[in-house]
Amino acid sequence: MTILSRRFHLVDRPDGLPQADDFKLVESALDAPASGQLLVRNEWLSVDPYMRGRMNDRKTYIPAFELNQPLDGAAIGVVVESGDANFSPGDTVSHFAGWRDLALIAADSATRIDTDIAVQAYLGPLGFPGLAAYAGLLRIGNPKPGETVFVSAAAGAVGSLVAQIAKIKGCRVIGSAGSEEKLRWLREEAGVDVAINYKEVPDLTEALSAAAPDGVDIYFDNVGGAHLEAALAVANDFARFPLCGMIEQYNDTPTGPRNIYSVIEKSIRLEGLICTNYLDLWEEFQRDVGQWILDGKIKWQETVVNGLENTPTAFLDLFAGKNTGKMLVKLSHH
Amino acid sequence: MTILSRRFHLVDRPDGLPQADDFKLVESALDAPASGQLLVRNEWLSVDPYMRGRMNDRKTYIPAFELNQPLDGAAIGVVVESGDANFSPGDTVSHFAGWRDLALIAADSATRIDTDIAVQAYLGPLGFPGLAAYAGLLRIGNPKPGETVFVSAAAGAVGSLVAQIAKIKGCRVIGSAGSEEKLRWLREEAGVDVAINYKEVPDLTEALSAAAPDGVDIYFDNVGGAHLEAALAVANDFARFPLCGMIEQYNDTPTGPRNIYSVIEKSIRLEGLICTNYLDLWEEFQRDVGQWILDGKIKWQETVVNGLENTPTAFLDLFAGKNTGKMLVKLSHH
Repeated sequence: MTILSRRFHLVDRPDGLPQADDFKLVESALDAPASGQLLVRNEWLSVDPYMRGRMNDRKTYIPAFELNQPLDGAAIGVVVESGDANFSPGDTVSHFAGWRDLALIAADSATRIDTDIAVQAYLGPLGFPGLAAYAGLLRIGNPKPGETVFVSAAAGAVGSLVAQIAKIKGCRVIGSAGSEEKLRWLREEAGVDVAINYKEVPDLTEALSAAAPDGVDIYFDNVGGAHLEAALAVANDFARFPLCGMIEQYNDTPTGPRNIYSVIEKSIRLEGLICTNYLDLWEEFQRDVGQWILDGKIKWQETVVNGLENTPTAFLDLFAGKNTGKMLVKLSHH
Repeated sequence: MTILSRRFHLVDRPDGLPQADDFKLVESALDAPASGQLLVRNEWLSVDPYMRGRMNDRKTYIPAFELNQPLDGAAIGVVVESGDANFSPGDTVSHFAGWRDLALIAADSATRIDTDIAVQAYLGPLGFPGLAAYAGLLRIGNPKPGETVFVSAAAGAVGSLVAQIAKIKGCRVIGSAGSEEKLRWLREEAGVDVAINYKEVPDLTEALSAAAPDGVDIYFDNVGGAHLEAALAVANDFARFPLCGMIEQYNDTPTGPRNIYSVIEKSIRLEGLICTNYLDLWEEFQRDVGQWILDGKIKWQETVVNGLENTPTAFLDLFAGKNTGKMLVKLSHH
């Protein structure tokens, strides 16, 4: 039996905002799993802003995507055929061979997941976005009760976790987002103290200053640009800034924060955050966030796009802010 | 007897580069020292780049200078008359009532200093510039033997200490400065591995990249601007950046580092450094640096401007890079 996998290749390196024709769906025959391999039928694919960086021809903390090769990324699927004694057909696994329907993977790159919680949570609050939020806020931010935490893209996959963990830790939380619907969710479901619509306020620094009369102690950056400048302007002495993403800058000519000197004046610490640096926290993170989910203390939103063929669209929609919470692609198998 | 003190007032807040007529020498009568006070005849005054920030009408980590009031800053002088049992006439003290010839100060704001080392060292390697270098490099930078340290304004009061302490700690050291004379001193006296004349190289990032084939692990920033961008570009993963000063930006419209996203890509830590945050290190700093000076492991340079009336000129010359090492004003008393 020939096993046909459909996967997306990157066929052109985007200059600025990626376009649909930078991606091509390619059909390819897979071998049956050899010893130590698994054949997995993907059910959920993750698309994430960081993937934009991998589309440039430049190694960063993770290799660049190769042209005319399958893209990858986090995915959840079900084992169809196993060449490894630790896995059986029917097991649900998380792995990294996303952007495709059927995947042939090394068994040691797969993690069996608990299906008591909706499995796609392992691409969001219980996956790398959750780890970024948990490690960045707790280890870099080191929040103390009563401190003020500002988080940008607060309705996003990472930001919504940051906001809720900060509330659990007793902080006052200010979140920014770009639609009234996101703001309502932040106020009513995530429990943030002040939600700012950054698209509507005339001056973000003034809005943040009004929202944070005692200043900002922790700024969790997912956006960069004007958000980072506003946070530097309103920061308190000894503020901590976990820098997790700068989605505002990924596709444009980047600019730096003009008030960078505030870092000196206020003894601020800025620290870049790659979630895979914090794998030592994995078990603690799974235990804490898993419990907070079961206790109803952490909620999350998903934007689900259906069908493998729409994966590039889902990815592009991230940069238009069309997602609320985690952007996911759901595959249906016939 | 009337005691006349001559001191400089700030009479205008500079917009951009300060001008000589922003300062005015004013004569004022002092009372004899009351109980708990000292009358001090200053011998050495410090002028430092950070003072520029205090000339703006904005509180930072230290209050703004008030208009039409005496400026202050670090100074070394000799006690003329003491109202405190812990000090006697003839004691040499460091204190903070600079920018004047005679000072009436609180005894508890003065520190008696050892005159075995040239006393003006207490305004440089054994003063706040030295503490900034020591704390920033060791506590924020945390250098390990074999790592590469890049320091800007490396022939300056802070940078020259950073370069030499980094060599003592077994690092490879790259320093930048703006004249061949400074470069020669860095190579021949301070022992840096590579000295870069930032005014002469066509592209600072390329020059730094060539000088640091293994990348930069620690960048000690005294300059900001293009230096900070170059350091971000050449930094290794997990690099540490103590940010101590941004003299390039103090008088101009500030710009931010356009490659700020590198902080995330490379998990870099940037941390603002105010030396007075590190007073807990004072004794360890005095012991270590004092010993290194006595052992001949640390050298320093001074640029001495004579006469109280030339204090503003000495200050302005800092921004033209006319100093090599610590800029000092020496007072002569008749």
